[in-house]
Amino acid sequence: MSSDLHGPVVPTPQAIGRFRPLPANRVRLAPDGLLGGWQARNTAATLPHCVARVETYGNLANLRRVTGDSDAEYRGYWFADTDVHKTLEAAFWSGTSAAFAEEAAALLEKAQDPDGYLVSFYQEPATRDRRWTELHFSHEMYTAGHLIQAAVAAARSAPGDAVAQQVVAVARRFADLLVRRYESSNEVDGHPEIETALAELYRVTGHRPYLDLAARFVENRGHGTLGEGRFGAAYYQDHTPLRTADEVTGHVVRQLYLLAGAVDVAVETGDTELLAVTERLWDSALDTRTYLTGGQGSRHRDEAYGDAYELPPDRAYAETCAAIASFQLGWRLLLATGKVKYADEMERVLHNAIAASTATDGTAFFYSTPLQRRTGHDGGGEYARGHRLDWYDCACCPPNLARLMASLHTYAATGDEDGLQLHLYGSGEFTAGDRAVRVETRYPWDEQVTVTVTATTDTPWALTLRVPAWCSDVRLTINDTPAVVRVQNGHLRLHRIWHTGDRVVLTLAMPARLVAAHPRVDAVRGTVALVRGPLVYCLEHVDMPDALFEDLALDPAAPISVAYHDSGLAPVTLRVQVGVPANSHVALYGPFPLAAATAVQHTVTAIPYFLWANREPGPMRVWIPLAPQVD
Amino acid sequence: MSSDLHGPVVPTPQAIGRFRPLPANRVRLAPDGLLGGWQARNTAATLPHCVARVETYGNLANLRRVTGDSDAEYRGYWFADTDVHKTLEAAFWSGTSAAFAEEAAALLEKAQDPDGYLVSFYQEPATRDRRWTELHFSHEMYTAGHLIQAAVAAARSAPGDAVAQQVVAVARRFADLLVRRYESSNEVDGHPEIETALAELYRVTGHRPYLDLAARFVENRGHGTLGEGRFGAAYYQDHTPLRTADEVTGHVVRQLYLLAGAVDVAVETGDTELLAVTERLWDSALDTRTYLTGGQGSRHRDEAYGDAYELPPDRAYAETCAAIASFQLGWRLLLATGKVKYADEMERVLHNAIAASTATDGTAFFYSTPLQRRTGHDGGGEYARGHRLDWYDCACCPPNLARLMASLHTYAATGDEDGLQLHLYGSGEFTAGDRAVRVETRYPWDEQVTVTVTATTDTPWALTLRVPAWCSDVRLTINDTPAVVRVQNGHLRLHRIWHTGDRVVLTLAMPARLVAAHPRVDAVRGTVALVRGPLVYCLEHVDMPDALFEDLALDPAAPISVAYHDSGLAPVTLRVQVGVPANSHVALYGPFPLAAATAVQHTVTAIPYFLWANREPGPMRVWIPLAPQVD
Repeated sequence: MSSDLHGPVVPTPQAIGRFRPLPANRVRLAPDGLLGGWQARNTAATLPHCVARVETYGNLANLRRVTGDSDAEYRGYWFADTDVHKTLEAAFWSGTSAAFAEEAAALLEKAQDPDGYLVSFYQEPATRDRRWTELHFSHEMYTAGHLIQAAVAAARSAPGDAVAQQVVAVARRFADLLVRRYESSNEVDGHPEIETALAELYRVTGHRPYLDLAARFVENRGHGTLGEGRFGAAYYQDHTPLRTADEVTGHVVRQLYLLAGAVDVAVETGDTELLAVTERLWDSALDTRTYLTGGQGSRHRDEAYGDAYELPPDRAYAETCAAIASFQLGWRLLLATGKVKYADEMERVLHNAIAASTATDGTAFFYSTPLQRRTGHDGGGEYARGHRLDWYDCACCPPNLARLMASLHTYAATGDEDGLQLHLYGSGEFTAGDRAVRVETRYPWDEQVTVTVTATTDTPWALTLRVPAWCSDVRLTINDTPAVVRVQNGHLRLHRIWHTGDRVVLTLAMPARLVAAHPRVDAVRGTVALVRGPLVYCLEHVDMPDALFEDLALDPAAPISVAYHDSGLAPVTLRVQVGVPANSHVALYGPFPLAAATAVQHTVTAIPYFLWANREPGPMRVWIPLAPQVD
Repeated sequence: MSSDLHGPVVPTPQAIGRFRPLPANRVRLAPDGLLGGWQARNTAATLPHCVARVETYGNLANLRRVTGDSDAEYRGYWFADTDVHKTLEAAFWSGTSAAFAEEAAALLEKAQDPDGYLVSFYQEPATRDRRWTELHFSHEMYTAGHLIQAAVAAARSAPGDAVAQQVVAVARRFADLLVRRYESSNEVDGHPEIETALAELYRVTGHRPYLDLAARFVENRGHGTLGEGRFGAAYYQDHTPLRTADEVTGHVVRQLYLLAGAVDVAVETGDTELLAVTERLWDSALDTRTYLTGGQGSRHRDEAYGDAYELPPDRAYAETCAAIASFQLGWRLLLATGKVKYADEMERVLHNAIAASTATDGTAFFYSTPLQRRTGHDGGGEYARGHRLDWYDCACCPPNLARLMASLHTYAATGDEDGLQLHLYGSGEFTAGDRAVRVETRYPWDEQVTVTVTATTDTPWALTLRVPAWCSDVRLTINDTPAVVRVQNGHLRLHRIWHTGDRVVLTLAMPARLVAAHPRVDAVRGTVALVRGPLVYCLEHVDMPDALFEDLALDPAAPISVAYHDSGLAPVTLRVQVGVPANSHVALYGPFPLAAATAVQHTVTAIPYFLWANREPGPMRVWIPLAPQVD
């Protein structure tokens, strides 16, 4: 058997941790499942698309300017290198795009300054002198962080490979520069990312100064060294030390990357107080500032959290990278604490906000994932786009998706001395040491998850299955015999002596459900959302006449039917009854209650939110108005 | 008797027009009424404040750079001169601030280039060459327009005055330059304003080329000469010719100023088709894109209209200048058509959005007038501020308020051969030729408006009183005798031989009312607003405990009481019954229907919206959640 190769986030053996990730090469998602299908599409389409775009959008050329191999103008943002780094990370996790990896590695090595510095924007003659002088803005350590994460992927995926070693060497030279420069400094980068990268590099190398510097950066933040900037210190979480923060705030990706780094530092240093801080802030996000899709970030202007309960569906920012960051943070907290709520949230954000960001063909992307689109117009930057774009001037999201999807298999299950835990349900094979299972399921389209033991030991061990909080009706058979269902803290722990071929069938009932938001969420008062299993559904204009879409209202007492399809966009759609007033025109404002017209009943189709905007552009809504109640 | 002096908007005798404005010096608002009080405060506080700020914020210094009398850095926006022009216009309308007017007039004359050009930003050595080359951006004709409007005020208010003549001469030289440069051009300015200014200058001077150029600019727009810019051609209404537009779009102030210019051109040229276009677009704004306060503009990013029914109360932009522009457009349409709806809207926007923009002391201002403020935080540019500011970097609104309030008396009443029409109710005296009335009222605090005939002719004439659309209970006495109320098209026309001392008492019943929005207005679904007479009310945090403010819900069946006060912030407040759940914490999302907790009843006070934020900063809301109906 080949040696273990690891994926993202591998705490050291001495770290705080309830669950341990499985080696990446002991896990496989089947491409005919939803998760495995996404991963296969990523390998076949998204990653090659990213490889092509970092060439055509000039990211590689920016680096070639440094090496003297290009005289094209510098192009894009000052952190444009990170698109290369994230694509490289994805290439390593996927084990594909080797030619790109080889070229990128050589280019990075050649472009690196002798002292280890490597940010092509600040290697320009006109900007060299600004290095390290504008940390609130420069993203230099953010760029270093993504380079380091590519190196971590290289080291873990291809430890003996020369190209991988080249990338690791480049990243370490940059990391060593950071250690020399900042190990006694009180400064921080305006965009967190370096913290988790350095902690991961420590895990790969065992070199303690990396972890120490990550810890230092976590503690340095919150002392106002970045200044007020355009949006205030809270924008980059520099308004208060992390340990004293009560609420998530500011730029969402920065907040979540910072928390991911803080978890990594906390578990590696045994800092339970810091770990508790990250859990408290995660709660603050989930309790007051998270969309039903798992997206976070209500405001376009500063890509930021809004106030508590400020969750407008149409003006939602809900950046794709924020959803990815939430997934990555959830995984860290799941590993550290074993609490099922983190896996539940990973499932929600993965199946809704993250999944929606990519077109069915894998080559177009949403930057922002709003829950409502009002008209057929594209309103530009601040407002919801009606179609996914091939690429962006600030293309942080597509390669971020590529690196997440390339490593998606590593997030589905964990192991520990007790046995094997399944957190995300998708067809595939999962091995924890001498124990292994095969999962077969059409989840989340289907309610059944079949788990077959494919390798085992003679001693008893536990197969632990996550029972999502949304599920109130769980059934179980073991070798076709109904078994007692005892869910504890969201986990179904089946502890016994397992035999090869033992077969567990978990049924998570998925009736269509109506969900309401907290009364303080002004923006969706008087509406409900349709949900089935982990999937949020939406109404899309192409499934009904325009006037119906504009004026429909749902009768919550009417039944909702579930329709299964062998072909078409969605394997499962929902059919709901709605009414529209016979004469819907009323003045913009009128005496309460407005005159109720006779409602005409229709049945309309709802599709999974993540599949919207794959047909023609137009309006969409997740939150459906409730029909006025007749006295 | 002195000769007639006129206010803003005086169509020529041959223009299309149903009503004619009264001469400004034949109208007086009493300072103890609400309208007259606002005007008096403007003269005493706001206008002197503007005079001081255009000095301290460098607007005058920018002009002195041109004359060689200042070496301070150029300061502010490229259209900073307009703050001087609007303040100067206000000074002329008010007949005060003579020293400022004299100084400004001399400075403008000295700063003007020999060819008539006068935009200090583009008289800088570094920018001279950019003149007329970046019309999508430059605001050069917008700046000329405000200069011209100051000259119109000078000519009408102080025709024999040397300072006034100096301003008129300066403005005509600039207008003549525009005529020479653009009379055969297909270009337009990115920011409409010049159209109405030139039409008004034509009215003052009788010089036809000014009107022709205004008409040309109206027709030139919509042919894409401005390019797409940052926000698309619709931002400056250059996406389609005005005559073909079906909906208001883009930057609200630009749209409304353009429509005002189009009305002026239409009535002066007898172009009934163009007049109909302006009415159609006004309808589009009022039917789908106007806040309950009369504010317009849902989007901060481009200060623009949203989609139809996109009217978020918390993220409302609702710029003060847009409200002023709506008022000015309404007046033009009222004069042209005589339709009461235009006066109704003038009343609404004046008493709510416009009134809210100024602090009670007259020296602090809102740029944006949202209908909800969520927390105690100031969210910065895109979001609602919780307090009015002394001045702004882009200070378009304060001097715009000053010029409006300085001429407010001219908007209250009109005359024609038929008699005298009262449109806005405030204490004061109104003279139309040989006929005159005195109005005494505490409107809108009080329901009664007493009109006494103070001058009359021997022949019958009509005293016409507007009956607002919000009023469903109108009573009338003439010389203490109840009279039959016959409202036709919103007007109560009392046609008879009037005698001096005749006394009409109009009673417009003002019960507190609950108003709901069209079901398509997603952002305020499941809420109602409290309205009394023309005033929108709001709940402000300082009037109740924080937790109550956050969680209250209104029972629409409970009575609302009206409370009168002799002192304090508001003469009339409303008292409403609300409930809050005994235990209000529920998860952010949950199964519909959410578990209803026992509601605890409270009575809370609502204040007029326009008076909010005059105590301590904090949350406010106009739209009040409705208590869930119990089945």
